[in-house]
Amino acid sequence: MPNKRKVAILGATGAVGQRYIQLLQGHPWFEISVLAASEKSAGKKYKDAATWLMETELPKEIAEMPVANIDVKSCEQAGDFDLVFTSLPGDLAGPTENEFGALYPVFSKASAHRMDKDVPLIIPEINPDHIELIKVQQKQRGWKGFITTDPNCSTIGLAITLAPLMQFGIKQVMVTTMQALSGAGYPGVASLDIIDNVVPFISGEEDKMETEAQKILGKFDGKAIKHADFQASASCNRVNVKDGHLESVFVKLDKEPSIDEVEAAFTKFKGEPQKLKLPSAPAQPIIVRHEKNRPQPRYDRDAGRGQSVVVGRLRKDPIMTLKYMCLSHNTVRGAAGGGILSAELYVAKGLA
Amino acid sequence: MPNKRKVAILGATGAVGQRYIQLLQGHPWFEISVLAASEKSAGKKYKDAATWLMETELPKEIAEMPVANIDVKSCEQAGDFDLVFTSLPGDLAGPTENEFGALYPVFSKASAHRMDKDVPLIIPEINPDHIELIKVQQKQRGWKGFITTDPNCSTIGLAITLAPLMQFGIKQVMVTTMQALSGAGYPGVASLDIIDNVVPFISGEEDKMETEAQKILGKFDGKAIKHADFQASASCNRVNVKDGHLESVFVKLDKEPSIDEVEAAFTKFKGEPQKLKLPSAPAQPIIVRHEKNRPQPRYDRDAGRGQSVVVGRLRKDPIMTLKYMCLSHNTVRGAAGGGILSAELYVAKGLA
Amino acid sequence: MPNKRKVAILGATGAVGQRYIQLLQGHPWFEISVLAASEKSAGKKYKDAATWLMETELPKEIAEMPVANIDVKSCEQAGDFDLVFTSLPGDLAGPTENEFGALYPVFSKASAHRMDKDVPLIIPEINPDHIELIKVQQKQRGWKGFITTDPNCSTIGLAITLAPLMQFGIKQVMVTTMQALSGAGYPGVASLDIIDNVVPFISGEEDKMETEAQKILGKFDGKAIKHADFQASASCNRVNVKDGHLESVFVKLDKEPSIDEVEAAFTKFKGEPQKLKLPSAPAQPIIVRHEKNRPQPRYDRDAGRGQSVVVGRLRKDPIMTLKYMCLSHNTVRGAAGGGILSAELYVAKGLA
Amino acid sequence: MPNKRKVAILGATGAVGQRYIQLLQGHPWFEISVLAASEKSAGKKYKDAATWLMETELPKEIAEMPVANIDVKSCEQAGDFDLVFTSLPGDLAGPTENEFGALYPVFSKASAHRMDKDVPLIIPEINPDHIELIKVQQKQRGWKGFITTDPNCSTIGLAITLAPLMQFGIKQVMVTTMQALSGAGYPGVASLDIIDNVVPFISGEEDKMETEAQKILGKFDGKAIKHADFQASASCNRVNVKDGHLESVFVKLDKEPSIDEVEAAFTKFKGEPQKLKLPSAPAQPIIVRHEKNRPQPRYDRDAGRGQSVVVGRLRKDPIMTLKYMCLSHNTVRGAAGGGILSAELYVAKGLA
Repeated sequence: MPNKRKVAILGATGAVGQRYIQLLQGHPWFEISVLAASEKSAGKKYKDAATWLMETELPKEIAEMPVANIDVKSCEQAGDFDLVFTSLPGDLAGPTENEFGALYPVFSKASAHRMDKDVPLIIPEINPDHIELIKVQQKQRGWKGFITTDPNCSTIGLAITLAPLMQFGIKQVMVTTMQALSGAGYPGVASLDIIDNVVPFISGEEDKMETEAQKILGKFDGKAIKHADFQASASCNRVNVKDGHLESVFVKLDKEPSIDEVEAAFTKFKGEPQKLKLPSAPAQPIIVRHEKNRPQPRYDRDAGRGQSVVVGRLRKDPIMTLKYMCLSHNTVRGAAGGGILSAELYVAKGLA
Repeated sequence: MPNKRKVAILGATGAVGQRYIQLLQGHPWFEISVLAASEKSAGKKYKDAATWLMETELPKEIAEMPVANIDVKSCEQAGDFDLVFTSLPGDLAGPTENEFGALYPVFSKASAHRMDKDVPLIIPEINPDHIELIKVQQKQRGWKGFITTDPNCSTIGLAITLAPLMQFGIKQVMVTTMQALSGAGYPGVASLDIIDNVVPFISGEEDKMETEAQKILGKFDGKAIKHADFQASASCNRVNVKDGHLESVFVKLDKEPSIDEVEAAFTKFKGEPQKLKLPSAPAQPIIVRHEKNRPQPRYDRDAGRGQSVVVGRLRKDPIMTLKYMCLSHNTVRGAAGGGILSAELYVAKGLA
Repeated sequence: MPNKRKVAILGATGAVGQRYIQLLQGHPWFEISVLAASEKSAGKKYKDAATWLMETELPKEIAEMPVANIDVKSCEQAGDFDLVFTSLPGDLAGPTENEFGALYPVFSKASAHRMDKDVPLIIPEINPDHIELIKVQQKQRGWKGFITTDPNCSTIGLAITLAPLMQFGIKQVMVTTMQALSGAGYPGVASLDIIDNVVPFISGEEDKMETEAQKILGKFDGKAIKHADFQASASCNRVNVKDGHLESVFVKLDKEPSIDEVEAAFTKFKGEPQKLKLPSAPAQPIIVRHEKNRPQPRYDRDAGRGQSVVVGRLRKDPIMTLKYMCLSHNTVRGAAGGGILSAELYVAKGLA
Repeated sequence: MPNKRKVAILGATGAVGQRYIQLLQGHPWFEISVLAASEKSAGKKYKDAATWLMETELPKEIAEMPVANIDVKSCEQAGDFDLVFTSLPGDLAGPTENEFGALYPVFSKASAHRMDKDVPLIIPEINPDHIELIKVQQKQRGWKGFITTDPNCSTIGLAITLAPLMQFGIKQVMVTTMQALSGAGYPGVASLDIIDNVVPFISGEEDKMETEAQKILGKFDGKAIKHADFQASASCNRVNVKDGHLESVFVKLDKEPSIDEVEAAFTKFKGEPQKLKLPSAPAQPIIVRHEKNRPQPRYDRDAGRGQSVVVGRLRKDPIMTLKYMCLSHNTVRGAAGGGILSAELYVAKGLA
């Protein structure tokens, strides 16, 4: 077990920031040292700055912590920290993460730097070798710290299921999502917009889903990442579900594996987090269910403490090769849980 | 205007039967004469046999009508009728519709006979010429009456949008549905199954969606229907919405029409119901919306009094040719409203 | 029929403002002349300033109307108007309504002036004589116009059911509400706050419910209103319902009328709007239902085009005298519909 | 720690039966030995007989257990057992519990025997001494076993909050409930009945709420229970919430305690389960929250592992003495959790 790292959370009052706080309670490697949020929160106690949305209680010591402003100076005044988790709105994320990244390891949930050539986009089970890209980044930018990113919440579940299919040669991926309310943050989706309704649009989401997986599943040659060359098309919807993004996936493969072979590939899929027994690693990154009507958000989102992706309805497709449903917890694996797992990987590899 | 036809409704106490009753109030061509339902309802007054689910009031004269048993003799004793609307459960529909079809025009919402070679599967705007198939049917079966069918509720919205795309050569259609609760009848989906949830399975639905549209869009040569030869793949989900099936559609075409050309094709699409000014025909079978987040079930299901299909998010697809969302009211156009429109067509053409 | 009045709507882009626009379409006495909203909307076309929330389409001519700023000068520049409907946030309502009230008849949905001694608080069926109080108001304030107010949305349904009980001597009223999402405006209640949940608090609501009904049911002696002297206690909750406030009411009376007598009192209750056949008056202000499980928001909110209050489960109470459930549409009778009915009364009486 | 008791669950496939199975996993005193259900389930493996509704996985060893018929002989053939938990439908519960009660300790969630004079109605924190009534029962009936009952799910939360108020002299209690879907079992409430809706009626519920608390809070003199003599009135509603009954309570007391005194009474309230450290006892039977908008079902139902009652919005009432909201988990404390706690009390006291 490494020495405990002190952690700063930027965007600590938001929905993802709160999930970071919740998941870091009792974490063996990390302890929360600094909470930072926007100016209107800064200077307050955390309990007065945040509307706590987690179903577990706000931890007492967190409640009393002061909230720092989101800049290096304010955070350093608030306390020592070794690494930074960010969950910032798009426009703020870019420059802020650059400021912190120059000095500290920054684990980012924002999209701002995901597609930057020298920034890793990490799912620890899939592309743990991509973390070495930060050395290129540090050299190029002359930084002591670095920025590493996690994919978009709707990409993560999809990409984890694509990883074991790479052996069969992925040519095309088509996906229609049914995404949870918590993906839009808080207050996020107005109740009047979603009661007895579906909203067939999520700003920017389809672009992310059509490009991120190819980077994650790409090859790192020590200098740069060569993106995987399959095509992807997405259609993204918001449904009246609290947590858990459900996705209807159609995949065209080069080969024609049997359903049993595909299922075996899903079930056997493990990666560095499992080998290294990282604290937040699920035993099974992918769980395949055989009931005819699963996965379902309410029943399956907490599988593997929210870190597993649950696959069901795996079947041959008459047009593509396969179709299946996959589900992942969008604020655990799809956000804070994924960020923590990523940080654990960097620590275990001696890079943070 | 033709003479008023007397109508029997088989399955009158169910959710679709109720919608028939509601939509036939004040209908210029049809009047309800006989209501029939299963044995446990038969013999009761309608108001005592049915749990009225429509938001409009149960009409007083319907409330007091006796419910007949679902057989020809009981219905004939209950009153005269010229034609029959059925909304029966699968196993009952097959033989019952045969019994009535031998003597009366039967407009069926059940799947039992949809794919029978001598039974038309009608969407009045698309294949009005297919109704001539009943002459083949009557001759072969030696029947005075006939059976004609409407497609599955999730097929209807899709097929109506495919009709104007036929000119561009449809090769493949992939669709993921988000279907409303009312599609499962009453009591149907348990509230505990759908609160904070999506159910990614609807029994038999995908098969229907993958085969029915080809028959509807097929050619009738006077003897038989040659199915259209495109491939279809469906993935069907139940979401927490009262009415309105929303579908995420991806289509591969032979040609590469511009988005403007496709939109024009959608908007111009009209058929016999519009030409004949059938009482239940919507002015526009397809309405294209340009807002980035439409169609939405709650806002768009009542377009054209529930008889229009609303299309939105029409865009180029990176893998197929097009993608778009479409929405139709599953118990109006997708059930009773479609059945009534179909009956209007037969009456206008002198076939019922 | 009076000459058509030109109407300005202040707060036209909000949820209640939109309901005013919707309900005034085709109104025989009123036509919309000016739409005003806050600075960030002013200067835009209405369609660009508002997120249209009604299930009916935004009327085309409204869509293109410019939005004026909420002050007399801007509104007068935008067009002529004879009277003003307001649905403004609390802090803005007070001074703005004073500015307009000095010159124009102002029909207010805000709470700011409801309890002012010289301002009527009107439910047209209950206290039509209170409108004469504006003469006192105009004299005291030296105004050409006036301010008249409608009660809080949760008070209206309750007060309408209390009116016919006054003959039995009301001593105490206890009420627990289950209020709809639309009562909080838009965006209003966050979906994450209400999915699989109830929020047992609505800011300021209980105070209003505990005091307004006594003013409405009070006596006007030509100079002032003497409030009715019963006590009221309220407990207000937000539930996951789009429209329709449902209330569980317990009433203690001086007399002990039979349930039949109470029901007769409810059913017979009519007022000036019915006598004068005001355009927005429901035939029955109170509809009593006998089913064991009604009223229900989704089924009963549109009774009397949303202007009737639906009562059910009327029964003796073991502690108080009576208990019953009542339901009213919070954005029709409880807001815009009530405001329009009130304006119709003033016009019919020659006061506006 | 007593010897482990072997347990039979009657009605094991229903929603409450499943909660028993879930809560008894790893229980230190009880182990499941026999699962029984109605004839259509009997003879099957549990996994084939039940639609598992818990969000935790169906335990593997339970999945493979055979389901016995609900009679003593079938259950005895299926395995040894020392005591019986029942969650049976009303009509079946009466005779079945008599059959088992003659031979075994029966812990019943049904209403059939709750008000029988010689049957205890137990909330372990409130009336642990009432369990001695089974000696009267056994003597009168000549039974080796006994029947003891738990209150109705909506009574439990209320009664627990009334217990510490008894010291101030309770005169009257008025309550309006907002009850969860799971209270109606499975399939229970149809989704079409509750989407965008509230159902203001639950069969039999108000009668139970108006009579049970007086028995629970009554005095046992060694022979019989003298019911507490306050009056109660209830109005019961079903809302769109999965778990957690929320209640709006108004109480009239003899004394006029300050809010601080009442809060202190709630907070200090503890009973035998806490003293005896029963395995399922919550540390705090009543938790008082100070936020203005709590308790809320989704946030507070799991307090004390679902065994605590959460009180909020405690305030003076202008008519009665106090008003407050209380919330309890209807299938944990209000059903299986309460039943297990009750059984633990009997075991700890040497009566089972």
